[in-house]
Amino acid sequence: MPGKKPAIDRVFHALGDPMRRAIVERLSAGPISVSQLAEPLDITLAAVVQHLQVLEESGLVKTEKAGRVRTCSIDPAGLSAAAQWILDRRSMWERRLDRLGELLAEPDES
Amino acid sequence: MPGKKPAIDRVFHALGDPMRRAIVERLSAGPISVSQLAEPLDITLAAVVQHLQVLEESGLVKTEKAGRVRTCSIDPAGLSAAAQWILDRRSMWERRLDRLGELLAEPDES
Repeated sequence: MPGKKPAIDRVFHALGDPMRRAIVERLSAGPISVSQLAEPLDITLAAVVQHLQVLEESGLVKTEKAGRVRTCSIDPAGLSAAAQWILDRRSMWERRLDRLGELLAEPDES
Repeated sequence: MPGKKPAIDRVFHALGDPMRRAIVERLSAGPISVSQLAEPLDITLAAVVQHLQVLEESGLVKTEKAGRVRTCSIDPAGLSAAAQWILDRRSMWERRLDRLGELLAEPDES
């Protein structure tokens, strides 16, 4: 099971590129073919394919070939892994603030 | 105001490195000095300082100097920006699934 989780390194690295984020953004609105995806992006089809490969390997995008058309869609695994990592850090940090708040609220016994 | 928001490129790029994530993880438990931070990481102080610079520029970490000691702490701005970007995509994607569900639930009038 742990082998199936997207490697968090790859997910964040993939999302660090504005073109790849634009692809994730576009696919969040629904699945489309690789050529439809490339059209408004103003980069070569080869570049789109390369970005898609990075996104696929990081668990952010899925592609499926039917006949001669390859369709891309969002893979929720990658975004979930990234969100979970951030939320885990945030809850650690908030727990710490809560503890600090409790300490400050305690009556001063000195 | 938009100039004050952490650039999302930088945030995701910063989080794509396992050492920088380890630093964010450690600081989520509470602020510490640069040298305390470097101790268990098994890298040089210079490398830690370099990672901290990237983290600071991306709005993930704050550092503050008091006398000769520089203390590092989590800057919530960076993590919030990353979380917001992911949640925005997810809600787009979920709305689409909801619409699809509604369409499928409609009585078949054909």
